[in-house]
Amino acid sequence: MSECFENVPFIKYEGPESNNPFAFKHYDADKVLMGKTMAEHLRMAACYWHNFCWHGSDVFGTNTFDRPWSKPASEMTAAKMKADAAFEFFSKLGISYYSFHDIDVSPEGNSLKEYTNNFAEMVDVLQAKQEETGLKLLWGTANVFSHPRFMSGAASNPNPEIFTYAATQVFHAMNATKALKGENYVLWGGREGYETLLNTDLKRERTQLGRFMQMVVEHKHKIGFTGALLIEPKPAEPTKHQYDYDTATVYGFLKEFGLEKEIKVNIEANHATLAGHSFHHEIATACSLGILGSVDANQGDAQLGWDTDQYPTSVEEYTLVTYEILKSGGFQNGGYMFDTKLRRQSTELDDLFHGHIGAMDTLALSLEKAVKMIKADTLSTFVDQRYAKWNDTLGSDILSGKYSLQDLANYAVNNNLDPKPVSGRQEMLENIVNGYIYR
Amino acid sequence: MSECFENVPFIKYEGPESNNPFAFKHYDADKVLMGKTMAEHLRMAACYWHNFCWHGSDVFGTNTFDRPWSKPASEMTAAKMKADAAFEFFSKLGISYYSFHDIDVSPEGNSLKEYTNNFAEMVDVLQAKQEETGLKLLWGTANVFSHPRFMSGAASNPNPEIFTYAATQVFHAMNATKALKGENYVLWGGREGYETLLNTDLKRERTQLGRFMQMVVEHKHKIGFTGALLIEPKPAEPTKHQYDYDTATVYGFLKEFGLEKEIKVNIEANHATLAGHSFHHEIATACSLGILGSVDANQGDAQLGWDTDQYPTSVEEYTLVTYEILKSGGFQNGGYMFDTKLRRQSTELDDLFHGHIGAMDTLALSLEKAVKMIKADTLSTFVDQRYAKWNDTLGSDILSGKYSLQDLANYAVNNNLDPKPVSGRQEMLENIVNGYIYR
Amino acid sequence: MSECFENVPFIKYEGPESNNPFAFKHYDADKVLMGKTMAEHLRMAACYWHNFCWHGSDVFGTNTFDRPWSKPASEMTAAKMKADAAFEFFSKLGISYYSFHDIDVSPEGNSLKEYTNNFAEMVDVLQAKQEETGLKLLWGTANVFSHPRFMSGAASNPNPEIFTYAATQVFHAMNATKALKGENYVLWGGREGYETLLNTDLKRERTQLGRFMQMVVEHKHKIGFTGALLIEPKPAEPTKHQYDYDTATVYGFLKEFGLEKEIKVNIEANHATLAGHSFHHEIATACSLGILGSVDANQGDAQLGWDTDQYPTSVEEYTLVTYEILKSGGFQNGGYMFDTKLRRQSTELDDLFHGHIGAMDTLALSLEKAVKMIKADTLSTFVDQRYAKWNDTLGSDILSGKYSLQDLANYAVNNNLDPKPVSGRQEMLENIVNGYIYR
Amino acid sequence: MSECFENVPFIKYEGPESNNPFAFKHYDADKVLMGKTMAEHLRMAACYWHNFCWHGSDVFGTNTFDRPWSKPASEMTAAKMKADAAFEFFSKLGISYYSFHDIDVSPEGNSLKEYTNNFAEMVDVLQAKQEETGLKLLWGTANVFSHPRFMSGAASNPNPEIFTYAATQVFHAMNATKALKGENYVLWGGREGYETLLNTDLKRERTQLGRFMQMVVEHKHKIGFTGALLIEPKPAEPTKHQYDYDTATVYGFLKEFGLEKEIKVNIEANHATLAGHSFHHEIATACSLGILGSVDANQGDAQLGWDTDQYPTSVEEYTLVTYEILKSGGFQNGGYMFDTKLRRQSTELDDLFHGHIGAMDTLALSLEKAVKMIKADTLSTFVDQRYAKWNDTLGSDILSGKYSLQDLANYAVNNNLDPKPVSGRQEMLENIVNGYIYR
Repeated sequence: MSECFENVPFIKYEGPESNNPFAFKHYDADKVLMGKTMAEHLRMAACYWHNFCWHGSDVFGTNTFDRPWSKPASEMTAAKMKADAAFEFFSKLGISYYSFHDIDVSPEGNSLKEYTNNFAEMVDVLQAKQEETGLKLLWGTANVFSHPRFMSGAASNPNPEIFTYAATQVFHAMNATKALKGENYVLWGGREGYETLLNTDLKRERTQLGRFMQMVVEHKHKIGFTGALLIEPKPAEPTKHQYDYDTATVYGFLKEFGLEKEIKVNIEANHATLAGHSFHHEIATACSLGILGSVDANQGDAQLGWDTDQYPTSVEEYTLVTYEILKSGGFQNGGYMFDTKLRRQSTELDDLFHGHIGAMDTLALSLEKAVKMIKADTLSTFVDQRYAKWNDTLGSDILSGKYSLQDLANYAVNNNLDPKPVSGRQEMLENIVNGYIYR
Repeated sequence: MSECFENVPFIKYEGPESNNPFAFKHYDADKVLMGKTMAEHLRMAACYWHNFCWHGSDVFGTNTFDRPWSKPASEMTAAKMKADAAFEFFSKLGISYYSFHDIDVSPEGNSLKEYTNNFAEMVDVLQAKQEETGLKLLWGTANVFSHPRFMSGAASNPNPEIFTYAATQVFHAMNATKALKGENYVLWGGREGYETLLNTDLKRERTQLGRFMQMVVEHKHKIGFTGALLIEPKPAEPTKHQYDYDTATVYGFLKEFGLEKEIKVNIEANHATLAGHSFHHEIATACSLGILGSVDANQGDAQLGWDTDQYPTSVEEYTLVTYEILKSGGFQNGGYMFDTKLRRQSTELDDLFHGHIGAMDTLALSLEKAVKMIKADTLSTFVDQRYAKWNDTLGSDILSGKYSLQDLANYAVNNNLDPKPVSGRQEMLENIVNGYIYR
Repeated sequence: MSECFENVPFIKYEGPESNNPFAFKHYDADKVLMGKTMAEHLRMAACYWHNFCWHGSDVFGTNTFDRPWSKPASEMTAAKMKADAAFEFFSKLGISYYSFHDIDVSPEGNSLKEYTNNFAEMVDVLQAKQEETGLKLLWGTANVFSHPRFMSGAASNPNPEIFTYAATQVFHAMNATKALKGENYVLWGGREGYETLLNTDLKRERTQLGRFMQMVVEHKHKIGFTGALLIEPKPAEPTKHQYDYDTATVYGFLKEFGLEKEIKVNIEANHATLAGHSFHHEIATACSLGILGSVDANQGDAQLGWDTDQYPTSVEEYTLVTYEILKSGGFQNGGYMFDTKLRRQSTELDDLFHGHIGAMDTLALSLEKAVKMIKADTLSTFVDQRYAKWNDTLGSDILSGKYSLQDLANYAVNNNLDPKPVSGRQEMLENIVNGYIYR
Repeated sequence: MSECFENVPFIKYEGPESNNPFAFKHYDADKVLMGKTMAEHLRMAACYWHNFCWHGSDVFGTNTFDRPWSKPASEMTAAKMKADAAFEFFSKLGISYYSFHDIDVSPEGNSLKEYTNNFAEMVDVLQAKQEETGLKLLWGTANVFSHPRFMSGAASNPNPEIFTYAATQVFHAMNATKALKGENYVLWGGREGYETLLNTDLKRERTQLGRFMQMVVEHKHKIGFTGALLIEPKPAEPTKHQYDYDTATVYGFLKEFGLEKEIKVNIEANHATLAGHSFHHEIATACSLGILGSVDANQGDAQLGWDTDQYPTSVEEYTLVTYEILKSGGFQNGGYMFDTKLRRQSTELDDLFHGHIGAMDTLALSLEKAVKMIKADTLSTFVDQRYAKWNDTLGSDILSGKYSLQDLANYAVNNNLDPKPVSGRQEMLENIVNGYIYR
């Protein structure tokens, strides 16, 4: 196949003054900050599904994208054309990683046998592509929510045969991820949830889901997959309520089934806001619970109640998020994966580049600003001082369990306590943050 | 003091055809359903704070209520006048329970010593009132969020002295609750949360909160309080984010600190919807996790983003909620507490009666309909059949851990699985529910 | 074609005690209330699109419905099979009206000529079907939002040729609606809005839209169409922002282009709530502005931020809405149209009946209760008394323009005004409403 | 009175590299851009109410701010101390304008006579202060929503005497605004709305409101006030629904009462988002309707459903808004007024400075970036080209009314129209915007 993106050059860093829309203004892959290159810090990935499997339809309209790789062909031929196009795109973009669902890259076929054979063949294709291009796999996953059989869930389905079907896909997708040296394996519970409580047994469905996750963990250890396992929270959509609502909910689920040391979260910005949280909140919560795995870097529309999966453009938002991640040690296995799609009206092939270039520049710039914040250390110094009294006798004795409620009541009366509150200095701190972003 | 509500009679049951606004149309306290009276099923309570401590102010306007019990007087005299009014109201209303915060019933004074003395005196007053009227205490709690000292939290405060101050209040409020034979003790984290992540250490604050709750549990056992301990989830307001966001979040917190057998949740309808859940969802989630304690029975405004604490009027909503509670065995220690306030424009004293009469009738009617649903058993039969295959070999072997992921993949291929989905019948089930409500 | 719904009988009224899921419990078409039959009051319609053109897909999953009328066939044959199925369904359901978009009933073909020919042929088919069954057309409309050419709007498109294309469809759809004796013609601005302000000229697009609507009005008069013209407000979805946001916005638009006497609104319950209003609010607003045309009777999900188009089940909500409509004189040309779709998991053919039976019963019951409210007149008496002072001298002089601001200031000081507010009695009024619903 | 802010210096511009929290990094009042100084472009104002009348209370807690100007004193003495503090603050801040409600600056007293006298006296005080400091009044307004008498609205009140009372306050506040050379007069309908439709006559209340506004317009002309009249939209809060919901709603109201040439809108960022719009949307809508008056420059919390009135910190948001305003000719009478309040935990006096310095820097920086966008003209060139076909024959003939619907249908068929959509280029445009912000 000839080039799909023949009019688009390999994207290079040209600096902030460049007016070339096909150049990075801020992402300079090899630039070193705090001992790592930008590429190593950000570990950015493009996805297969939105970029190569979706063609611009929405609930009220049909496809608007006319893509060369979706021309009529046998299913396997089409899958290979798509792989050619995808790797041409990833390479020209100069991104380090990609990610996929099983059926993004490989046709489902008419039986599990066909599925398995197709997938095995496509894994070889991908392996060759990775070697040829140097691209790496950030994560793999299985799509167990699009086919009608999964309409009432996969692991949480009322029918154990459907659970079994999903298990089969996850088995193959985990093996493929390992074969392709994927650094994480992600589980998104697209339909693990309910549409109405009237037909749902919450406890039973949670038990099924718990057992499924335990099997995934067992399989990981059995095959020696050294990547991380990640659950991706989302509050709703497509179902009315999804069980992996947000990070705190997933944490409770992991604790219930003894999995909190085995599974982390893959946080998506747009899922955070749909759950009623700021993106920053979800990242900070996961860091504080020790379960931050990876990030789906996108942006929602603050006025819309569904997952718009837009390209991230807000340096203001990503600076805080990147600061939080750096503060907790930076990504281990995870990275910033662009779970982003074009607007339906962005019908040109090169719009795919505009979207990703803007996104990668946004993250690069956010990284630079976050690094400045880390180095200056103003915020964490302020925070440490704010809680300093907890390191003194009373504070540490309380936390070490020395006091009962009654002891404290006596202490308070004996010392005639009348503690005064201290300004939280929110406005001053916001100015300090803007000082790092806009200097 | 003479009667406050002299123009309002004792409220009696007169049946659905009555046009008397000061009569129950549906709440017939002694009517027996499924072996219990309505009163025993519903265990309804009125609150002290909204009814007797709030005078109609809002963020943009001053008090609109002119209450006889808030006439100028010494603090303790006023507290006693208020108690007279409150118990007159509770009695005339014919409700079984009430609930309070420490400083609703007793003046804070100018020192912890004064606080303690005042509170002790008022507990005696309340005890006498309870004996005189037969009223019972559903739950007590401490207000550790209104005073400026708690502006940055109580247990999660950056200052351990403020933690200690809060501990002192909780110590006294728990003791008072025990003395008054309260059936539950509630903890609402009004300001246990953050206003900005920029000045907050999430992990540290959660640790403080965890230790605080452990102390509460230890104190409960030490004093032999046999009631239930309850945390009341709320996502935000007054703070930007509250740590007890929703039931699932509280469950994760309880598991983290080993408290899931000691503390249950007190679910408020309006807090559920502010958290992005249906009220039914929060109740069903708590039941499925085994942590449903009690319910703050109110109603929010679907268009407003703050806690409006309106009187419940929706039989459609409360029928499902009551059905869920009955299905899980009914209230143990908990009940339906009206955390409800008048609209600011409802300035008449007797509006307090209109609000509560409507609320109590709504719950009584919902109970009747829910009992019909339980007896007919149509819904749970449908649900059981929907999951029936999980009782067969494949299903039960999966749940008992007999299969690995690979075993299931083999099973699927060997059996050439192609399971078909089955209609979830949501519309039919909704019609069945309406059949119970509107027959 | 043989029957599609062969296992479903003609739906009859059996009364509230019936347990037959295929019978009405409340909708008794010929029952007379306030001088009209239930059918005449409610003027209920089923739609073509959700019931016969959508097959259970959602953003994350493919079709789950396997419908006999969508079996492979030539486009026109398929269209006729669909018409057979549709009218079989409408007839068995015993509903009075239906509604359609041009391309629901007729294939678009490969050119405008084919479109025109196909549509003409299908109008004849529909005409015959109407005669055969007695079904009537509540409204017709044109779908100028699904085809990719409309991705950036129809009338508000940056390209006047696309405006022209849309005009052509609307021309034919209006003519077809007239030919089929449709009682209204509806305009839904599915993509009349913007995706980003960065590429949008708001003023220009509004001007285009204004001219389009004027042309529609002119055409109506030219062809002597005696039905009503209706705009259907929706705040967003599919676009980020739709120009027909809500009733108040549409009113301003109509005033701007001098159309407020020519065009009314078709209010959809779920669009109202997506716009941040209660359904009741939108209806009451349209009534008060004199522009209520018709109603898309459905129900959203209070927790979801997109159009779920569920079957209406809330008698509590529809009683108030129906009361409001009756109070303003009842429907003229409009009616209750079910813009409702099955849940994606409700895959059985007869689920279509369950959905509609429940919806029709909900509306019938709401009508009965609203009629009681109208007859008793308690609410409007209360409201009239609340404003009674405006009928006295001061009030009527103010409204008639007798006073300037300065005159009033003098009046106030001279009379030493200190007016006292009066209880709004919200809780009492809510109890009165529940008294009508639950007696 | 001695200085209140004795530890805070006069705030000066020190440039982006300054670390002095009490200096501007970006606001350089006299810097000239496009022929005007920053001060002339931005016309920034601080408010009296949040800064000097509110003391840190919220719905769940009492005052946290201990302000020197609220020490016990006679009402008029206190009002003068407050004025001293306010003008000390405004001056040190180096802001150009301020704004107030009548009762922010002057005690209500116990009768309208006292109110009038107090207000007259305080207007003299303010006049002297203005002269002394060079401060100017951006706008005045009357608070006709806080006092209990206004609990059910002012102009839309069921009692015409309350309407009259409000008219009296507006009369005096307009006169005071004229006397103080205020450049605008604002009407905010804090309680012009409803709490429940059950007790409300929408049409009647709108008629009252319409008459009230006409009287305001008549009075403006009568006294020769040359400033602009502005209505400030807000969707809800304190009432359940406010009649001035958003800009489009206000426009419809103005058209209904023939006021669209007399009254403009004062748009508040946080009100825009509460109404379900982006701030940018409200500004662009007002510009496109020709009714943009002034702006309340603040910022909401994207996760909270109430008016948080935070200091603006987002250069990303304000750049677009400022660009829109510049594109439509810049502010005439209006400006950026900080309707902002400190977080309740920001208890220090100097926090008032931190909040405003950050806000003023945010707007200054946004101005600089917006000016770059205007000068480069890339966006508007793109937009013009996008609609270019509307300047050709077909487009202009359509808009000039040359075509009927039927003509267009003929045109379409005769020309066998099959127009192709063109990419909307959203991602590319977003990158262009970020190019201006982050270069």
